[in-house]
Amino acid sequence: MTKIIAINAGSSSLKFQLFDMPEEKVITKGIVERIGLAHAVFTIVVKGEKRTKELEIPNHEVAVQLLLNELTAHEIIAELDEIVGVGHRVVHGGEDFSQSVLITDEVMDKISKLSDLAPLHNPANLTGILAFKRVLPDVPAVAVFDTAFHQSMPESSYLYSLPYSYYTEYGIRKYGFHGTSHKYVSERAAELLGRPLEQLRLISCHLGNGASIAAIEGGKSIDTSMGFTPLAGVTMGTRSGDIDPALIPFIMQKTEKSADEVLDVLNKQSGMLGVTGFSSDLRDIEMAAEEGNDRAELALEIFANHIHKYIGSYAAKMYGVDAIIFTAGIGENSDVVRERVLRGLEFMGVYWDPALNKVRGREAFINYPHSPVKVIIIPTNEEVMIARDTIELIS
Amino acid sequence: MTKIIAINAGSSSLKFQLFDMPEEKVITKGIVERIGLAHAVFTIVVKGEKRTKELEIPNHEVAVQLLLNELTAHEIIAELDEIVGVGHRVVHGGEDFSQSVLITDEVMDKISKLSDLAPLHNPANLTGILAFKRVLPDVPAVAVFDTAFHQSMPESSYLYSLPYSYYTEYGIRKYGFHGTSHKYVSERAAELLGRPLEQLRLISCHLGNGASIAAIEGGKSIDTSMGFTPLAGVTMGTRSGDIDPALIPFIMQKTEKSADEVLDVLNKQSGMLGVTGFSSDLRDIEMAAEEGNDRAELALEIFANHIHKYIGSYAAKMYGVDAIIFTAGIGENSDVVRERVLRGLEFMGVYWDPALNKVRGREAFINYPHSPVKVIIIPTNEEVMIARDTIELIS
Repeated sequence: MTKIIAINAGSSSLKFQLFDMPEEKVITKGIVERIGLAHAVFTIVVKGEKRTKELEIPNHEVAVQLLLNELTAHEIIAELDEIVGVGHRVVHGGEDFSQSVLITDEVMDKISKLSDLAPLHNPANLTGILAFKRVLPDVPAVAVFDTAFHQSMPESSYLYSLPYSYYTEYGIRKYGFHGTSHKYVSERAAELLGRPLEQLRLISCHLGNGASIAAIEGGKSIDTSMGFTPLAGVTMGTRSGDIDPALIPFIMQKTEKSADEVLDVLNKQSGMLGVTGFSSDLRDIEMAAEEGNDRAELALEIFANHIHKYIGSYAAKMYGVDAIIFTAGIGENSDVVRERVLRGLEFMGVYWDPALNKVRGREAFINYPHSPVKVIIIPTNEEVMIARDTIELIS
Repeated sequence: MTKIIAINAGSSSLKFQLFDMPEEKVITKGIVERIGLAHAVFTIVVKGEKRTKELEIPNHEVAVQLLLNELTAHEIIAELDEIVGVGHRVVHGGEDFSQSVLITDEVMDKISKLSDLAPLHNPANLTGILAFKRVLPDVPAVAVFDTAFHQSMPESSYLYSLPYSYYTEYGIRKYGFHGTSHKYVSERAAELLGRPLEQLRLISCHLGNGASIAAIEGGKSIDTSMGFTPLAGVTMGTRSGDIDPALIPFIMQKTEKSADEVLDVLNKQSGMLGVTGFSSDLRDIEMAAEEGNDRAELALEIFANHIHKYIGSYAAKMYGVDAIIFTAGIGENSDVVRERVLRGLEFMGVYWDPALNKVRGREAFINYPHSPVKVIIIPTNEEVMIARDTIELIS
């Protein structure tokens, strides 16, 4: 039995998914929440049923210990040594990592140094790595980076037009995120299209609470909408996406906030929440728009319009496009957003079928058969990518 | 004799162009520089020849007086009262002005209040208006706004995804600039195409030291790349264009600069100057790139790529495009930039002729005859637009 556990550690949480490999079968999954806080919550799926308990979980090491105990207690696995590898999601790999790697002391050191670029995420990811290292010291671990897939971007895509020394001295460039998701759906698209990935020009729209668009040529990311941080690009649930950079000093002056406070507004009180004034959740917004709420309608239109424009822009970048992919919560489930995004793209060969577009949450082509550009819904699966890279690297 | 003078006043300068209307013939033009500084310089074209003199010009009023004296002294006009109207370029019209207006006290008051949004430009423009009011109190004056043409943008184009109150309380939205130029070339494009402007979808690329792209549908601007300020959008000579807004706090921290100092870097030390490290002038950069300078090549590629992507994005926005227009210094003269911008747009119906593209500085179609999308070079003429609006409003 070859089992791989895929881990996504946040500062006070730990998501896990246990795979049987190489079958890629999910044996169980769950989440530990509120680690280090009062009333931590442990949730695990046992035989298709969600079980939750509240208890004290002072740190990630205890969370990992608990998780492993539960796996054997529920007889999900017989022995801990069935777990042959742990795969960790790491947000920022900077320019050091253009693919997944076996975690060594040197790798941990680099991940730690990259915390400068991802101060909220990398330290949390590292906490998860260290916790597993302590509890399962002999099980090899692999780091899978959110930025790695985008390291193939050419310099003309990733360089900002700032003094060049900002790049060489401070690492200021476009990194891009959601790389594991964009990679998964692009590989899956090639399978579904029955064509070699090397010959395809794909536009991948990962639309969730965070949203990013990627231009993928021959299986390589050549441009993406997120930037130095996940704030950039299209409007999101609570994030502004791109704005005129001159607005930051202006807002600072008008609101008497510090730069960091303004950044906090851009990350947490902007996006569709800022526009609607009441929600960052697309389901609420769609419902309100349908009921005639103008600001909800406006937020929907802005969100869809940003994505629509990125599709035009990335089609231009690749001199055309073979398929457009929708993934993640909104991309997989919202026919309303997809319709607004796709509307009017016939001029570039996109003919989509409103009836097929009604599908939710499963793989489906939604273009007319004769459409030169295919449109595909592909539920994303970052965990399986982590499991795949882990099994490959530990072999 | 009906003469109109078109004025563009800066904080220490005053550009003028004298028109015979309605023939739109330029009788003379010139510039007063270093007003209020040591060694002011007055330049005027007399019978096709540039005449320059250095003298003391303490303020704009003296500059205007001098200019008018020179017009009669050189017998360019016989009497001052041949000048029936003065047209002033004003940078920011906010949401108050969606077209040119006769200048009244109320208008001046509004222009002054809008200085909050254009602290460098509106006060200077106002100085020019006041100077003419004092010297020619009985001659009607007209304000022509750089932002007015873009006031037709729908809210989904102009609203940033920020807390909505930032728009209502502080006027934070996309305004767009170069409106007079985009309007001129779009009207001229319709004439050249022999089609009604109302039926056309145009993408206008105003590429100079400042650069902006506009999507113009039925003669109305529906989107543009500049934003709240002229910093936003594509890379420019010294301006960064769009960057991840999160970079401002990051750069502040790394360089220990204030937000305003960082903004200054983004406006003056970024763009192609930042990337190349040696010049903001496209002619220098093209030459260096040709000689094998990597960073010059990179700057060219970034600049052209941004414009290329905007074309794709605005074509998507308008569900297709009928013509792409190039104007302003770079747009009119650089076949190198145009080639890189247009390359690979065949997928959306753009077939351009490399031989025709060699043209510089004059009106020309550079598409193949069969191309569904036309590509037109149109030298811009903001001054004639000012003269036209002036004669129309004073009649």
